[in-house]
Amino acid sequence: MFIVSLFLSLLAVSRAQYEPTWESLDSRPLPEWYDAAKVGIFIHWGVYSVPSFGSEWFWKNWQGFGIQKYVDFMERNYRPGFTYADFAPAFTAEFFEPDEWASVFNASGARYVVLTSKHHEGFTLWPSRYSWNWNSLDVGPKRDLVGDLAEAIRSKTPHIHFGLYYSLYEWFHPIFQSDMSHLFTTNEFVTKKVMPELNDLVNRYEPEVIWSDGDWDAPALYWTSKEFLAWLFNASPVKDTVVVNDRWGTGAICHHGSFYTCFDRYNPGVLQNHKWENAMTLDRHSWGYRREAGASDYLSFRELVTELAETISCGGNLLVNVGPTHDGRLPAIMEERLRQLGSWLDVNGEAVYDSVPWKHQNDTLTPGVWYTSKGNLVYAMVLSWPEKDVLTLGSVRPTPQTHVAMLAYQDDHGSSSLQFTILQDGIAVTFPAMSRVGSQWAWVLVLQGIEPA
Amino acid sequence: MFIVSLFLSLLAVSRAQYEPTWESLDSRPLPEWYDAAKVGIFIHWGVYSVPSFGSEWFWKNWQGFGIQKYVDFMERNYRPGFTYADFAPAFTAEFFEPDEWASVFNASGARYVVLTSKHHEGFTLWPSRYSWNWNSLDVGPKRDLVGDLAEAIRSKTPHIHFGLYYSLYEWFHPIFQSDMSHLFTTNEFVTKKVMPELNDLVNRYEPEVIWSDGDWDAPALYWTSKEFLAWLFNASPVKDTVVVNDRWGTGAICHHGSFYTCFDRYNPGVLQNHKWENAMTLDRHSWGYRREAGASDYLSFRELVTELAETISCGGNLLVNVGPTHDGRLPAIMEERLRQLGSWLDVNGEAVYDSVPWKHQNDTLTPGVWYTSKGNLVYAMVLSWPEKDVLTLGSVRPTPQTHVAMLAYQDDHGSSSLQFTILQDGIAVTFPAMSRVGSQWAWVLVLQGIEPA
Amino acid sequence: MFIVSLFLSLLAVSRAQYEPTWESLDSRPLPEWYDAAKVGIFIHWGVYSVPSFGSEWFWKNWQGFGIQKYVDFMERNYRPGFTYADFAPAFTAEFFEPDEWASVFNASGARYVVLTSKHHEGFTLWPSRYSWNWNSLDVGPKRDLVGDLAEAIRSKTPHIHFGLYYSLYEWFHPIFQSDMSHLFTTNEFVTKKVMPELNDLVNRYEPEVIWSDGDWDAPALYWTSKEFLAWLFNASPVKDTVVVNDRWGTGAICHHGSFYTCFDRYNPGVLQNHKWENAMTLDRHSWGYRREAGASDYLSFRELVTELAETISCGGNLLVNVGPTHDGRLPAIMEERLRQLGSWLDVNGEAVYDSVPWKHQNDTLTPGVWYTSKGNLVYAMVLSWPEKDVLTLGSVRPTPQTHVAMLAYQDDHGSSSLQFTILQDGIAVTFPAMSRVGSQWAWVLVLQGIEPA
Amino acid sequence: MFIVSLFLSLLAVSRAQYEPTWESLDSRPLPEWYDAAKVGIFIHWGVYSVPSFGSEWFWKNWQGFGIQKYVDFMERNYRPGFTYADFAPAFTAEFFEPDEWASVFNASGARYVVLTSKHHEGFTLWPSRYSWNWNSLDVGPKRDLVGDLAEAIRSKTPHIHFGLYYSLYEWFHPIFQSDMSHLFTTNEFVTKKVMPELNDLVNRYEPEVIWSDGDWDAPALYWTSKEFLAWLFNASPVKDTVVVNDRWGTGAICHHGSFYTCFDRYNPGVLQNHKWENAMTLDRHSWGYRREAGASDYLSFRELVTELAETISCGGNLLVNVGPTHDGRLPAIMEERLRQLGSWLDVNGEAVYDSVPWKHQNDTLTPGVWYTSKGNLVYAMVLSWPEKDVLTLGSVRPTPQTHVAMLAYQDDHGSSSLQFTILQDGIAVTFPAMSRVGSQWAWVLVLQGIEPA
Repeated sequence: MFIVSLFLSLLAVSRAQYEPTWESLDSRPLPEWYDAAKVGIFIHWGVYSVPSFGSEWFWKNWQGFGIQKYVDFMERNYRPGFTYADFAPAFTAEFFEPDEWASVFNASGARYVVLTSKHHEGFTLWPSRYSWNWNSLDVGPKRDLVGDLAEAIRSKTPHIHFGLYYSLYEWFHPIFQSDMSHLFTTNEFVTKKVMPELNDLVNRYEPEVIWSDGDWDAPALYWTSKEFLAWLFNASPVKDTVVVNDRWGTGAICHHGSFYTCFDRYNPGVLQNHKWENAMTLDRHSWGYRREAGASDYLSFRELVTELAETISCGGNLLVNVGPTHDGRLPAIMEERLRQLGSWLDVNGEAVYDSVPWKHQNDTLTPGVWYTSKGNLVYAMVLSWPEKDVLTLGSVRPTPQTHVAMLAYQDDHGSSSLQFTILQDGIAVTFPAMSRVGSQWAWVLVLQGIEPA
Repeated sequence: MFIVSLFLSLLAVSRAQYEPTWESLDSRPLPEWYDAAKVGIFIHWGVYSVPSFGSEWFWKNWQGFGIQKYVDFMERNYRPGFTYADFAPAFTAEFFEPDEWASVFNASGARYVVLTSKHHEGFTLWPSRYSWNWNSLDVGPKRDLVGDLAEAIRSKTPHIHFGLYYSLYEWFHPIFQSDMSHLFTTNEFVTKKVMPELNDLVNRYEPEVIWSDGDWDAPALYWTSKEFLAWLFNASPVKDTVVVNDRWGTGAICHHGSFYTCFDRYNPGVLQNHKWENAMTLDRHSWGYRREAGASDYLSFRELVTELAETISCGGNLLVNVGPTHDGRLPAIMEERLRQLGSWLDVNGEAVYDSVPWKHQNDTLTPGVWYTSKGNLVYAMVLSWPEKDVLTLGSVRPTPQTHVAMLAYQDDHGSSSLQFTILQDGIAVTFPAMSRVGSQWAWVLVLQGIEPA
Repeated sequence: MFIVSLFLSLLAVSRAQYEPTWESLDSRPLPEWYDAAKVGIFIHWGVYSVPSFGSEWFWKNWQGFGIQKYVDFMERNYRPGFTYADFAPAFTAEFFEPDEWASVFNASGARYVVLTSKHHEGFTLWPSRYSWNWNSLDVGPKRDLVGDLAEAIRSKTPHIHFGLYYSLYEWFHPIFQSDMSHLFTTNEFVTKKVMPELNDLVNRYEPEVIWSDGDWDAPALYWTSKEFLAWLFNASPVKDTVVVNDRWGTGAICHHGSFYTCFDRYNPGVLQNHKWENAMTLDRHSWGYRREAGASDYLSFRELVTELAETISCGGNLLVNVGPTHDGRLPAIMEERLRQLGSWLDVNGEAVYDSVPWKHQNDTLTPGVWYTSKGNLVYAMVLSWPEKDVLTLGSVRPTPQTHVAMLAYQDDHGSSSLQFTILQDGIAVTFPAMSRVGSQWAWVLVLQGIEPA
Repeated sequence: MFIVSLFLSLLAVSRAQYEPTWESLDSRPLPEWYDAAKVGIFIHWGVYSVPSFGSEWFWKNWQGFGIQKYVDFMERNYRPGFTYADFAPAFTAEFFEPDEWASVFNASGARYVVLTSKHHEGFTLWPSRYSWNWNSLDVGPKRDLVGDLAEAIRSKTPHIHFGLYYSLYEWFHPIFQSDMSHLFTTNEFVTKKVMPELNDLVNRYEPEVIWSDGDWDAPALYWTSKEFLAWLFNASPVKDTVVVNDRWGTGAICHHGSFYTCFDRYNPGVLQNHKWENAMTLDRHSWGYRREAGASDYLSFRELVTELAETISCGGNLLVNVGPTHDGRLPAIMEERLRQLGSWLDVNGEAVYDSVPWKHQNDTLTPGVWYTSKGNLVYAMVLSWPEKDVLTLGSVRPTPQTHVAMLAYQDDHGSSSLQFTILQDGIAVTFPAMSRVGSQWAWVLVLQGIEPA
């Protein structure tokens, strides 16, 4: 069947657009929905959610690198000879309610969701025929977790796009290790495992994001990434709407793909000339859930909204990661952060969704002020309430038509307008009484009729 | 103060010992530390933390009442024939770090801690010789959890008093059931189990709070409570400093004991003529940890500080409950609430610790304003920022010496003073710019030179 | 016989009650059924059947004596901190079919069964209210194992008497340890645990054997054994038929009780002047099941029948021990031995059941020949087929009426008679063709009209 | 690498002997050791040894056929949603001592051993890279069970040949199911899984028996069996000594291969014109260990020796199956049967090892007499001791040189000779006194100088 679909994809190529070259693939326009969406949810879930200790790199850290903390953890808490695969039956997911997850994601204001269909451990969250007895239907949850979440997202929150993360490499897969030991002159792993699985994923779940990872050790040639992408863009069921990241083989990252993710928690702070994404995680130290994380290990909401403002202003999307538990719950503190994000976006989302970067990204005079724009409106996201209630903006030049307002604010007459004075090199906006503003963090000014400095 | 209380206690000893009558026992003065402390932490931890579903009444709800939700949970997730006691080996507590707990409790601003040494399930968190193979050293944690926490609290946070909860009855203890079937004309359970255990607890750990519970089915006569209290007050190692609650047999609740806890989440809203305590829990629906609790099941910090203000104003103490997990962690959202409480108390604690109720408890004109006092100072805890920044107080009469200030506020000159105007029936205080105030919730006014209305 | 014993028992009651002195208790006649029964089954089953390693002394060997083999076993196979009590949930007994056990015991030819109601570990196989959460109804099997077996034995094999083993001491019971540390000047353990449990056992299950054990550290005074026995013999529901062994306090063993068990695998080889019992076990090295036992660790049937012959000849009963598995099975090799025993008794039981010792126990000339008698018949159990088919007996004097036959043998005319010749100091019996004999082991001669040498 | 070895094998074919046709493959002479060996041990061990219920077809019976007994077993004893793969971590093998197994197999008299490297469940007992996380190194035992046993057999008992069973199909492998759903017009399963694994097995462990199974649903064309066998016979490291059975695709059974196993427990009772094997099992009802098997479910030794005699006489080999437990033990009753077999072969093996069928297989006059021969000697294995000690043989014609003796017998002069008389249609052999014979079962006559009838 894979052969057949390859053939069809070749057919499609001949008929139509994209060839398996970076030049051709990179010429594909970014599907519009993705840039408009701005905010997504990343979900790291797998067998590592059972020990839920250290990070989702548990297995590698324990048995690959032999890091003492992990070795000790196993020695203290498990019988000798306990293997990583022995964890899988305890991945029970009995509290997993995909509709509830969809509801929380919806409340967060996110417009897309990316689930780890398979992380570096190789365990697939769908019944992959190429990962028999090492997937969520055969061991542990006894469910098609990918399918169940896709179904919930699509039926309960149809405006949220469903995407999938997929790790190309698998730390300990013996066939991958064999290819590696042959310096990737063989690619049995790709033809027998990676490509069949990616095909299966696309055809079965029609994900609109494919978030590739684990590509770094081998070139795109080995992974046959370009061929896959050509099929994906030409002939797959999601050819018109799918977006992909940039991790498709050594050197591809930050150079090819629908959007760039140049490194984890990528937040360059300046405008980029290509669409990018800041994939970051609520737990500062892990993507997968880890039980030992204390309250201070989680980003405060203020830190989260700071990430958001910086990212959107510089043209990025924010992909906020959560790590569910082995039994299928979103930890309450993660849910709380998502709900705080949603509350903020409820009143300030106008500055985020569908916005584009402005000429300036952050203000030249006052730190912590980040701009976006939409048509003739410019939005300033102000992370700190100004001392003495007056905010000086240096990147802005007023005109006679200039008007300043604040989102989530109304005076007694229902007006959101703010007073401002013209400075030599900008304007000074007088903030209202804080007690009148319906947001505790990151106030948004709407600037009309202004010019960039 | 220590000298004084030592003197008083010596006096007490020389003057008289307490007799096992309520009249005599109730005559004992409340040890001073308790009223001054105001805020404590309650900890519900036991075998119910393993299923961590529903509530700490899991066993009773499942096999006593046969509530469908619990029956279903067991049927869906466990082998037939799985018993409640079969859960105990999974109570592993491998993440339990008592020093970390002490550190969090300290950061919360609490001045005492009350741990469930034994809940209605009968499992003891210390190696009780009367609960062999049904305690935390023999099964599961393999630790003396009571002793380990007592040691941490006392060595790391010596200003925090250590107390213990103890359930007199045990739902399913066959000897208790036997006594009950004899209408409590026998008391084998009390003489063989309850009294030996209470004695052991007091002598071994010297708790300064004994929080009795599960007394309601039988009279104090059955429980030999009065005899126990007489010993506790006369001759035990904690006779001078221990405080006890009021659950010592049918009818005792709300009538006898150092402080009253007339029901769970007891928050009468009006001044009481006897010291009392509001034992409440961060999870609205459970004292023990339950995995299915979502973010909205936890009190927001605003709700928590509301409980605090109402309670302290009316002469109560607030006992804030947390439910650790089976593996020994404080869930991050609970830790966050405790840290928020501590941050608030850091700047506003002056209105709480060592305070006494004022003539009025809450304001007659403006709802959500709660008073405390200390010497000639009156504190008004204002739960909501006043509309248009002006707060009208009706329970207050100004004098020429009246001065109003706000905690956590300073103007440019370092002054905390606020403007106020005299009304016919009170005063109107002008709040500062909210942006100048170092607290986001429940602002505290310090009123000097005022009279009660 | 039932009428007679009823009469005798009424007589006993009317005549006198036993007093709690050894003199009085030892005056009680042995209930007849016990000496007639000759063969019983002993069953060692408990939490030790879960690790099923080493022996039923697993806990003591591991954590009491710290024997390296046990320490290593735990370190190699279990998580650190795993406690003995943590084994209990795995005592699942899902294959336990009491009717099948009864059927096998019946096939073995045994006439009584003795089950460990509680071994030194303290875990009770019935729902003892004094061993809450450390019994088979509260943890693991979720069954009353004692009750279920008693019911099966009585309903399926009414001729088999049901008895119970009960260990007085418990290695690690903290209250016993407390009494011990007080040099048994306190006896809280006896009054709170041992006596209530023994009473409960007798009243609930009416065992006709009470096989006490674990008495050795303390005197009968401490155990209140004599008081218990007086009640047992005077007023209990089994007062007329119960037999007890001799382990009732330091020094009692081999001196008091219905039958003596002077040490484990007690097989004195000479006639005793008091009824005794050889309690031995099919696994040479353990009473409880141990997984590491190989085929050669089990007694061969030849060894078993040798034990039987020696024991019965010297006036003992044989109590053959089996160790069921944690999941409730009799290991097949044990079942096979029991069935072999039954097959042998089917044809040779005439020499065993209801027999009494003869003047000589074993032959003076030929080793391995053991005698019993019944009325004017003398039985010679011959463990080895004689060389050249001629057996010389030196303990026998022929008379003119002497006749010799062999059980399980018939010649072509249906006769069991054997030829013999008269020797100076005995007789020489000519064995038949072995191929004509219906038994492979331990042939039994029936001697009529002979005198002892 | 597989490609490379295929190439080498093709090379070998061109250079040498066998072509991938049945005609060519069947022309290969049987390696001599196999026919001489006569007795082997079969070992069924896998994840089914964890539930060890019903049979090694547990998974198929439960979830394939939905047989009620299996469905009930799971419902009664496991949590809902428990999968077959969830059993694997409990396959702990902590008691597995390959040297002890080798010692027992040696004591049994067996000359070869065949271990299930992979049964129909697909779980491999060696670290197959094509069965990642579904093999004994990745889950459960954390050992290379195949390698460990091979090493023990070869170092401890070098005269025992080591062989491997391998199931071609896997009930639930999704790739096999896919091939099947395409009516075996695709063979992804064979190229990706079966052939790589068989190659790996042969190269890594050099088995001298390959016992194929699970072939029946698809033709040899699908399995590429003939190509594999050509490589095996031409170029593999065991090309000179390996033997294979006959299960290589629909229709191959009983028609192709080194030896035929026309069905399970194949025991035709008449001489075959091709080498064959009787693969049978000590448990009448299962090849894998099942806990519910009682003593009568196991073949008695008499039944076993009957199988042996019938099989060897008709030109077969006997492959005696044992089923180890999940924790790595040979159940004691199986060990006992193997040791009984070894004891018998110790004295009677002369009639078995290196023997060839005689002209007659069983006697025409007396049932239960089975012949073998070696040079000019004829052996008669007599399963039942003759009535009146005289055995009539009808298939034998005496000559003047005729001499009859019995193995395991000696008279007082050290002679094994027996008397016989000449009958019209045979001879009548007078058996010695049974008590002089060193065997309890299946006596062997050595006939010299006789002719077949």
